[in-house]
Amino acid sequence: MAVQTVAADSTTPDAAEKTGGSPFDLGAAVALSCRECGTRTPLGPSFVCLECFGPLEVAYELPTGDPEGLRKRIEAGPASMWRYAPLLPVPADVADKPNLNPGFTQLVKADRLAAELGVTGGLYVKDDSGNPTHSFKDRPVAIALEAARAFGLTTLSCSSTGNLAGAVGAAASRAGLRSCVFIPDGLEQSKVVMAAVYGGELVAINGTYDDVNRFCSELIGDPLGEGWGFTNVNLRPFYAEGSKSLAYEICEQLGWRLPDQIVIPVASGCQLVKIDKGLRELIRLGLVEDRPFRIFAAQAEGCSPVSRAFKEGTDAVRPVKKPDTIAKSLAIGDPADGPYVIDICRRTGGAVEDVDDAQIVDAIQLLARTEGVFAETAGGVTLGVTRKLIEAGALDPTLTTVVLNTGDGLKTLDAVAPTARPTALIRPSLDAFRAAGLA
Amino acid sequence: MAVQTVAADSTTPDAAEKTGGSPFDLGAAVALSCRECGTRTPLGPSFVCLECFGPLEVAYELPTGDPEGLRKRIEAGPASMWRYAPLLPVPADVADKPNLNPGFTQLVKADRLAAELGVTGGLYVKDDSGNPTHSFKDRPVAIALEAARAFGLTTLSCSSTGNLAGAVGAAASRAGLRSCVFIPDGLEQSKVVMAAVYGGELVAINGTYDDVNRFCSELIGDPLGEGWGFTNVNLRPFYAEGSKSLAYEICEQLGWRLPDQIVIPVASGCQLVKIDKGLRELIRLGLVEDRPFRIFAAQAEGCSPVSRAFKEGTDAVRPVKKPDTIAKSLAIGDPADGPYVIDICRRTGGAVEDVDDAQIVDAIQLLARTEGVFAETAGGVTLGVTRKLIEAGALDPTLTTVVLNTGDGLKTLDAVAPTARPTALIRPSLDAFRAAGLA
Repeated sequence: MAVQTVAADSTTPDAAEKTGGSPFDLGAAVALSCRECGTRTPLGPSFVCLECFGPLEVAYELPTGDPEGLRKRIEAGPASMWRYAPLLPVPADVADKPNLNPGFTQLVKADRLAAELGVTGGLYVKDDSGNPTHSFKDRPVAIALEAARAFGLTTLSCSSTGNLAGAVGAAASRAGLRSCVFIPDGLEQSKVVMAAVYGGELVAINGTYDDVNRFCSELIGDPLGEGWGFTNVNLRPFYAEGSKSLAYEICEQLGWRLPDQIVIPVASGCQLVKIDKGLRELIRLGLVEDRPFRIFAAQAEGCSPVSRAFKEGTDAVRPVKKPDTIAKSLAIGDPADGPYVIDICRRTGGAVEDVDDAQIVDAIQLLARTEGVFAETAGGVTLGVTRKLIEAGALDPTLTTVVLNTGDGLKTLDAVAPTARPTALIRPSLDAFRAAGLA
Repeated sequence: MAVQTVAADSTTPDAAEKTGGSPFDLGAAVALSCRECGTRTPLGPSFVCLECFGPLEVAYELPTGDPEGLRKRIEAGPASMWRYAPLLPVPADVADKPNLNPGFTQLVKADRLAAELGVTGGLYVKDDSGNPTHSFKDRPVAIALEAARAFGLTTLSCSSTGNLAGAVGAAASRAGLRSCVFIPDGLEQSKVVMAAVYGGELVAINGTYDDVNRFCSELIGDPLGEGWGFTNVNLRPFYAEGSKSLAYEICEQLGWRLPDQIVIPVASGCQLVKIDKGLRELIRLGLVEDRPFRIFAAQAEGCSPVSRAFKEGTDAVRPVKKPDTIAKSLAIGDPADGPYVIDICRRTGGAVEDVDDAQIVDAIQLLARTEGVFAETAGGVTLGVTRKLIEAGALDPTLTTVVLNTGDGLKTLDAVAPTARPTALIRPSLDAFRAAGLA
């Protein structure tokens, strides 16, 4: 299998055979590269370009020249995201190391939902609540874990308001690393329990999520933080790549075919950007036919800086200072990848839209009622926006459409608790049941 | 591939080619047969032998004579329990029908847990929290759904205190069947939400779980209940077979090898009985080598009628009138399959043991801390009993051992909430962090 050399780099040549030119065995990953100015940096726990302060991302030498061989190799792989190890910054034997083995979640053919929404071209829900800690976060964390191991980091950390905290705690426990997770004080009990149960350090910070984030950045620069891997800070270039696996899985599960349209929730925007990257990689590698695809972004009205900028026709994403939405996992007021999201949606002919809390709850119930999938509020945002875009004519109902559910309804019970109640309360008798009129 | 005729039956011969002799296409299932007297009954929504009132179970004509071909067929199947469709009472095209596609959950090689418990022969956790509604109940319900479709039943129902209610509601929604689920009034809110969110009828009964059960039996005998399939009553023979898939998966995931020891939680006992049945089928079909295996049963001390009978050396399982344990999903005071469980544990050289609430919580935390798996209380019972049996010398730590986790910690948060707390609460400053002594 030939190798597509994306660029020369400056690492030791004698380590090239096993590690693609890098002293670290992270598979096809050969360097970090600035998304703004393109400057290369050797692989390591870095996240900011020293030339222009742009964000770093992973650069690869991907295996080209034998798409059929690569496809067969993937199909013979494990039923997890590691079937795509050749396309991710992980060692080839990643599946043999202790990790949560996330991914290869179900792509649900949602015929009953399609009928209600009037979609005739095929509607699918990619249900990432099937991951080990029941959100898509297990994917990026699994990649960050491999980077931490490669760089000899011994504490896995993050700032989080929920899903990420659980994913980091669980992954560290499985791998035998120490974990220390930072959360704002005053989170819901269920999220605190999920973050604490894996037995790592859980530090509540007296302040907001922004305070927690600032503190983590300070800690990385301090000797106190030596040997620490913050999944969403100094390991972010690796972490972010985890979402590419969603693109790979969707295409393989569609029979190695691109979806025509895909609707993705936006918090930082990172997931959407990486799904776009993954789809384009599959085209470049010859694993799918090169056809147009449209990417749509979904936000909650109470925190919709990207949607607002898109509608105003600008690239300037003005931060939302006080997010106010039940979709807390999407409530990032100043999304780092906001401008990239707008660019991708414009380039592919998609759109960015938002829905309010009532529409979120309606969409959660619609998905549960028609397909038996209980989504967290972020999933309600994505489906709610899908419905809104169909009604507005922005989404074409005659095309193959994929909607992402990124998390589990069990984590955001409060959203539906007021309405998800018994339909009747009766005595244990046939007469009482008959009188209730339910037979 | 030759067919192992398990016995003659009385159904129409001209339907034999497609349906194995039955007017219903339920794959290799050919009849119902009494577990006590062996009398055969045609396939249908029946659960009691009309000769002796014993429980009915599914009888098969299983595909024998080409184990290698069967193994390859299974390995080429979908990443769900439907890869074992040839061994289950379902049509061959079951994976193409709308259903939750449960199963093929992870078998976690639990090396860190093994080190803590001193197990050297290989310790595995079969983690069924990975199922679509996050408990093993999705497996039996998926089989009951196919039976309901085959028999033309249009309402899917059950009596439940939690996991089963959610599994039935979700499966019915996916399939487009009506559902009507009965629960005792006063359940925890999270269980009520999970039971209600799928939009079927949810009837709370003013009474205990036993009252709910009695009411359901009345309803089946009444014209009001016509067209209803109660997964755990009139569809029970089919429903119960779903747990066989756990045995198949464990053996395939061990490389087509029987585990030496397996520890299984006991509520009604049905799951343990069917796992034993599944293991013996694999031996008979030549898919695994015929070697001894030991089955161990786990109960909560606050509801341990089977454990008590086992320890007393009797078969007579005296009902527990008022179960008192945090493991509510195992709190069946009068387990229908109790005597069969005792028989199997004795026959295979296993044992039945129980643990108290504190040991259950300890075991949940141990599993989370060492392997990143957050189990529900039933999983804590199983691991707690495993630990107790190792300490007592009843489980051999030098043998390959599989422990079942049948559900998800998110559903029984209360068990660990008092202890799963932040380890520190600090101001967002490096000084405060340094003072907390966590770096």
